[in-house]
Amino acid sequence: MGGVILYGKNVADAMENELRDDAAALARRGVTPTLAIIRIGERGGDMAYERGAMKRCDLIGVNVRRFVLPPDVLESELLGVTDKINRDDEIHGCLIFRPLPKGINESRICNSLAPEKDVDGITEESLYGVFTGFGHGYPPCTAQACIEILTHYGIDIAGKKAVVIGRSLVIGKPVAMMLLGKNATVTICHSKTEDPAEQCRAADIVVVAAGRAGLADARFINPGGVVIDVGVNVDDNGHICGDVRKEDAERAKAYSPVPGGVGAVTTSVLVKHVIDAARKAQPDTPGRP
Amino acid sequence: MGGVILYGKNVADAMENELRDDAAALARRGVTPTLAIIRIGERGGDMAYERGAMKRCDLIGVNVRRFVLPPDVLESELLGVTDKINRDDEIHGCLIFRPLPKGINESRICNSLAPEKDVDGITEESLYGVFTGFGHGYPPCTAQACIEILTHYGIDIAGKKAVVIGRSLVIGKPVAMMLLGKNATVTICHSKTEDPAEQCRAADIVVVAAGRAGLADARFINPGGVVIDVGVNVDDNGHICGDVRKEDAERAKAYSPVPGGVGAVTTSVLVKHVIDAARKAQPDTPGRP
Repeated sequence: MGGVILYGKNVADAMENELRDDAAALARRGVTPTLAIIRIGERGGDMAYERGAMKRCDLIGVNVRRFVLPPDVLESELLGVTDKINRDDEIHGCLIFRPLPKGINESRICNSLAPEKDVDGITEESLYGVFTGFGHGYPPCTAQACIEILTHYGIDIAGKKAVVIGRSLVIGKPVAMMLLGKNATVTICHSKTEDPAEQCRAADIVVVAAGRAGLADARFINPGGVVIDVGVNVDDNGHICGDVRKEDAERAKAYSPVPGGVGAVTTSVLVKHVIDAARKAQPDTPGRP
Repeated sequence: MGGVILYGKNVADAMENELRDDAAALARRGVTPTLAIIRIGERGGDMAYERGAMKRCDLIGVNVRRFVLPPDVLESELLGVTDKINRDDEIHGCLIFRPLPKGINESRICNSLAPEKDVDGITEESLYGVFTGFGHGYPPCTAQACIEILTHYGIDIAGKKAVVIGRSLVIGKPVAMMLLGKNATVTICHSKTEDPAEQCRAADIVVVAAGRAGLADARFINPGGVVIDVGVNVDDNGHICGDVRKEDAERAKAYSPVPGGVGAVTTSVLVKHVIDAARKAQPDTPGRP
């Protein structure tokens, strides 16, 4: 017994071919799509993500410019960096690693970024777009990566019952709104939900983004359903693991694991947004903001 | 058999006492809380709502200034009106009847309103606040009226299973986010949902806002649950009716009917927002925007 494993790499590979063509088309017009990365300090997770993003950008033909700041950076200095990025016509998108150091108003920094360069859904305008289903912004990359996996593997969303565990602005709420936008019936569960397992067992699609290793065990698994694990945790042996117990999830019809699932798609989505932003920034592009 | 009827009038009466005190306190400081109403043409529903709002404002001590425009008003003229309202320090909140006439960019008009005067949750900033749970804006009055009813009648929300039928920006999505913010487990159903009745039967709280008379019948009713009807329809005899069949809904533990439920609370919420906006507009108020 055991279902299909929804590997992220297959999705990323498929996206890569298309994105490379898109980047090449821009290059022929003299434009190199460019991502700015703002990183503060040297947290392991940030560094790993940055390496992955840089590698992906390099493969596809997207430039990266890093802005690395010390952990004691002032809010005013950070605002100076986003201002510089906003004014630079050769930068098309910007990723900011969070959380920001204490004492810095995160919301102010996020919203200082020009909405058209917000390729990871952190500004007010982007989140408004995710909530309402209109607007020009980009959703958070991780939330969109879940949708890309479902789409790539031909999993129907419309009319299906979807359950999202977690209600963060980075993943839970946005992915719930995106599933709703694709006509799923969506239930949002969280730490105060009495019977998350019961909800999940009755669902066609489950997205688990609680950030708690092993939260979802056999009781959460519908053998006819699809499970997308989005949790990133470190287990007792120091290994990366998701929120879903792998041996249980493998009993579902299809399962996207951690590691190897959503994470592998997130940087492809990021690159996709940068290329799209670069295209929209060209003066002869219809629908330019 | 038969449950409690959650009449809106009881909620509005309780709110009125408090709001009258709040308005009086502002009056002692020389401030008359003032609502602007922008109405285009003479649609029956708009006129009825306007009369109700004006009566409520009068009872509580809130001023109303009406801006009535012809159905062929130009977008530029409407923008002129919102600009005038934005600049007028003696106007604290503004209600705009929608939908706007064809040919007018509704989103542009909504977002031309100063966010601090947006007492009915129509600007990008207000909806961002509803989605994220932070921000200074006000949610749409009808969505908040549902919460006021639940709160007034002492109905627990935290940890409960809530189902919302409908996903509009005026009621469905905002009330779902507000219930989620109060720690309900929230399911959003809509026209593409396969089994809305099954979802509703399993729910502690059901909010029906689909805009279809008689949509929810006995199959939708959990005898131990609470039903809030938000639909406003006209039946075959020309009478106002909700989305829920009254004779079935009365079998629920508690039920807020149409007419007589949410509608009676909406104008009180509107007045509450205007008074709050008036207070925040005073130079000596802490937390002033």
